[in-house]
This record gives sequence, structure tokens and C-alpha cells, in this order.
Amino acid sequence: MEEKVMLVHGGGGKQTSELIHEVFAKRFRNLYLTEDDAAILPPPASNIAFTTDGFIVSPWKFPGGNIGKLSICGTVNDISCMGARPKYLSCAFVIEEGFPVKSLEEIADAMALTAREAGVSIVAGDTKVAGHGQVDGVFITTTGIGERLPGAHPSGKSARPGDAVIVSGDVGRHGCTILLARGEYGIDAEVTSDCAPLWGMASSVFDVCRDVHVLRDATRGGVGTVLHEIAGQSGVGIRLDASAVPVDPAVAGVCGMLGLEPLYLACEGRLVIFVPKEDAEAVVAELKKSPYGENAAVIGEVTPDEPGRVVMTTELGTQTVLPPPGGELLPRIC
Amino acid sequence: MEEKVMLVHGGGGKQTSELIHEVFAKRFRNLYLTEDDAAILPPPASNIAFTTDGFIVSPWKFPGGNIGKLSICGTVNDISCMGARPKYLSCAFVIEEGFPVKSLEEIADAMALTAREAGVSIVAGDTKVAGHGQVDGVFITTTGIGERLPGAHPSGKSARPGDAVIVSGDVGRHGCTILLARGEYGIDAEVTSDCAPLWGMASSVFDVCRDVHVLRDATRGGVGTVLHEIAGQSGVGIRLDASAVPVDPAVAGVCGMLGLEPLYLACEGRLVIFVPKEDAEAVVAELKKSPYGENAAVIGEVTPDEPGRVVMTTELGTQTVLPPPGGELLPRIC
Repeated sequence: MEEKVMLVHGGGGKQTSELIHEVFAKRFRNLYLTEDDAAILPPPASNIAFTTDGFIVSPWKFPGGNIGKLSICGTVNDISCMGARPKYLSCAFVIEEGFPVKSLEEIADAMALTAREAGVSIVAGDTKVAGHGQVDGVFITTTGIGERLPGAHPSGKSARPGDAVIVSGDVGRHGCTILLARGEYGIDAEVTSDCAPLWGMASSVFDVCRDVHVLRDATRGGVGTVLHEIAGQSGVGIRLDASAVPVDPAVAGVCGMLGLEPLYLACEGRLVIFVPKEDAEAVVAELKKSPYGENAAVIGEVTPDEPGRVVMTTELGTQTVLPPPGGELLPRIC
Repeated sequence: MEEKVMLVHGGGGKQTSELIHEVFAKRFRNLYLTEDDAAILPPPASNIAFTTDGFIVSPWKFPGGNIGKLSICGTVNDISCMGARPKYLSCAFVIEEGFPVKSLEEIADAMALTAREAGVSIVAGDTKVAGHGQVDGVFITTTGIGERLPGAHPSGKSARPGDAVIVSGDVGRHGCTILLARGEYGIDAEVTSDCAPLWGMASSVFDVCRDVHVLRDATRGGVGTVLHEIAGQSGVGIRLDASAVPVDPAVAGVCGMLGLEPLYLACEGRLVIFVPKEDAEAVVAELKKSPYGENAAVIGEVTPDEPGRVVMTTELGTQTVLPPPGGELLPRIC
């Protein structure tokens, strides 16, 4: 373990996992603390999904949303990915001295609107203020409680050979949006974050498929990181068809210029779904009915060989191993 | 409303309430969002208490604890004050790039130890890293779920004339400790934070008193702020006996030198309890059995006159109105 916490530890990839395991998980060990998106609690809170997420995105406002909307979506989506209906949220703010109240109101407006869309109530909160220069703008932590659908038990460990791999829309939009919003590359492109609350979409998947094996939302590390995690957790191989991965042309253009792989750019409104192959068509058709799912597509399949690896068939027909998630591409993406 | 968020908005007093009301509560309004320490949820999560708290204390380590211990105690105590047994916690970290991993381990050790003492499991977490200078050290947000005791329904609105006002120990220790730990005043005194998990103590109060009217933990604004809030919420007067308020001699000495009122210094391990006068003696006796309650005392009573005010009988026998909580005494106290 390195001696200091580095930005790469916050990237959502391998180093984040190591830090969490070495420093926190080892010490906090208990039956309910798992690698899934939320904990599922025993009685008296049985069938309750419980999860938390901190948001430190910079800039706090970006095309398609702001930190407030993001803070509701992130936690709503983690609960949704456990097959649970999001019900209650708490939110805790740390605000920098001097932050404009008008901006805080804009953030709270977005939170209220998104909570309404997602069908959740914000029932508890906390507000702290740190001195100028002791926190950059506003950080928000949301924590959520959801009610699990009977019979739903998706898990990163449940991918099986023969599963179809589905994404609910084009990949990498949130990461690309934040990258451009920082203005560091001097690139001007029309890209909007995919940030959205996904319970409506997630629940519709359970409506048409009785046996959803894996349901995850791709956040910090993008769809590529999620696929690597699932391949590892389930001990299976994943074969991706590069030409099937939906990428917005503007995102593809930015990635081309900067040499980035869209599969590793953050999403904030995209589901990664593993279902038995025979259900795939119905699931994609259902996803396309959602306002957030028009670009839903089957992008690959699960194989018994090469467990733990993600192999991509390129557009030229060659096979290439999708490299494991690298270091921190961009800090403070969410 | 002022145009910028100021440190005083984080002080836990009147300005904090105003900011929360004007910016957040107005927008997030729902049945379960109240002014109490935690939300009580309806079915399917019925009798569940749910609360969140952000911790940004500076310095992160102080005599009697560190930000990790504090982050467990704060949320455990808020749940306890709803008459609910703390069961599950989540924790979200924002860590500054360059923060020593050893220090993070020390924080996690304290969290694990305190969680064990409090009987809670940490079941969900999140880790973000912000760049050097974008967050000062480590901030932690904990969120908790507790199971309410049958028949327990303490509330800041339930104080009644004739109630005895009890504190579970000497006041102002945490605030005084942080103040000295910053070293800004050049005062050297042996003061240790009262930071402690209070469920054991809180549950014992319910054991000996069937009708606990109010149970609160005094945090940011100290016991004085809590008393003002209760007087306002319940529409009653509170009469305090200054000579009965337990204050550690070292804390009293520091307060004397700096002209501070210990009743307005933060506590992190003190309950404020309102029970019918006839139960007061039994409650104090029970509190004294706890390792955190040796200085428990009745410090006043509830009166029907002067609703909303806290009147103090001084050690000289004169009557004085305890001034309402002022601005921010000391930022980043918890």
C-alpha cells in the first residue's frame, strides 16, 4: 500500500478497490458489507437496500445537470441496481464559505425535481460549512433506502456463460461532458451528460425478465470497469462486439482527438444488464421505451473461457483484450 | 437571506436553521422530513429511524477521539435520541490527495472500535479523493438506520410544564477540546472530548421511565442551543439552575479566560433529557451507572410561563435570560 492517498485511489478502479479493502473493509467486516452497489438488510429491515455515495464533481454545474441532480441519480441508481425501488434519501452538504446561496438553491431545485421524478422522498439532512479554501464549492453525500422487488437478486457474481450483455444507452457521455466543461483541452463539442434516475428503466427490465443475473450502473470507471469487475466476481469471460457499443458521434470525436476509450469514460445514466440470451431482445425493446434508453443495445456475451477477461472483437474483426481499468483518468468526475 | 453562505450558517444555531429551511426544507418538503434528529419511516420500513451527519472536524485528531470515532458517535447518538436502537451505518469518505494512509487507518480503526461498542454494523460505504487543497484532510458522512423501541416517541415538541431537565454529564468538553487542539489561544489545559456512543445510556433511560418526553444529544451549539430549540418547539419556558450545571473545572477555567459560556460549547457525548419530575431521580441514578454518566444531574425544569425562553437562576440567586444562541463560535467543531 502506498503511503499517501493519491488521486488514482479515487478513480473507481483497481487502486480504489485496494484502498477500500485494505483500509476499510478489513476493519468493518460483517455479513452485510459486500461488493455490490447496496447492502441488503436482514430483519427488522428485511428486503431493504441501503447505499451511500459522495459527490464532489467539478465543475458543480455541467451540460445536462449539476451536482444536486447527480447526487440524487447516483444513489437512486445504486438502489435500483439491487432490484429495489428507491424510497427514502438523506443528504448531507459540506459547503464552502462564500458559496452563493443562489447556486445552492439551483442545486436544491435540481435535487427536488430529480427526487420527484425518481419517486423518492428526502427525509433527513445535514449541513456543514467549511472555511474558504477548505472545501471546493459544495460536496454532497446522499444515502438511500429502497424496497427490494420480491424475487429480484441481481449480483455481480451471477453472470453465467450464455448471458447477453446489454447497455441501456450510448457510453461515456458524463465523463466526456465533465472533461469538456473543465475547458482544459480547448475542445468545443456538443456533449450532454447522461445523468438520469434509472428506477423506471430498471424496474421495466424485471417486468420482462424473471431472471436478471446482473444489473449495474456504470459510473466512475465507465462500462469497461464494470465489465471487468463482473468478469472477476463471476469468474467468467466476456466477449464484446466493438461495433455494437453505442457511442455518441461527438463523444467518439473527442475520444479520437484525445486518444481515450469511451468504454472507460464515466456514465451516470447507463445500466449494464446481463440476462439469459433468450430474454435479450425483449429487454432491449423494453429499454428503448424509456426516455433514457433509445440507444440500448446488446454489446456482447458471457463465455466460459478466459475467466476474468474482457475480449473485444474490433470493427476490423480482430480480437483484442480490453485492457484492465487504468489509473485515474479524470478526478472529481462525480 | 444573505447572498453567500457564511461560516455562521454552519454553526448549528439560528442561521443554520434559516439556511436549511429557506434552501432545502422548502424544496424537499414531505411527511417524514422533520426537525427531529432522525426521520421515522412508514411501512415497509416502519419503526425505522434514519439519519445522516457530515463530519469535517479540524484537527482530525484530538484528545479523546478522532474524526472516525466522532463520525460513528454522531449518527449513533442521533438515532438513539429517537428512542431507536442503532443497527446499520453507511460511511462516505472524501479524502485529500496526499493524506497519509496510516492516518486513514487510524481513523478506520477508531470507527471499527466505536461501531463495535455501539453495536452497529457498517454495511455500505463510498470513497472519493479530491485534489490537494480541494478538501482539507478527510471529511466523513455517516448515515444510520435504527429500530425504534416500542412505545418510544421522544420529540423536541413534547416538553411539558413540570418536566425535569437532565443532562447526562458535564457540558462543553468537545468544543473546549477542539478549541485548545487548534492551539490558537496558546492555552494549555487538560481537557478531553466527551465524544461517546450513547445508545447504552439512552436505552437505560427508557428502561426506568415509560414516558420520556424529550431526548436530544447536544452537539454543535451545545446544551444551550438544544434547550432554546426545545423551548421553541414545545412552546414552554425552561428554568435552569446555573449552580446545578456540571462543568469540568478545566473547561470552566478556559471559559473564564476566554469569556465563553460552557452551555454553548459543543458536546459529543451528552444527552439532554426531559422526563416527568417524579421520574427524574431514577433516571439520574440510571445514567450514573454508565461510564459516560457519572456527572449526570437535574439542571432545571419546564415552566408554563415565558414560552420559548430559557431563564437561568445564577449562582448569586438572580434571574437572567440565557441569550439565544449567537453566531458561529468555532467552525469545524464536528
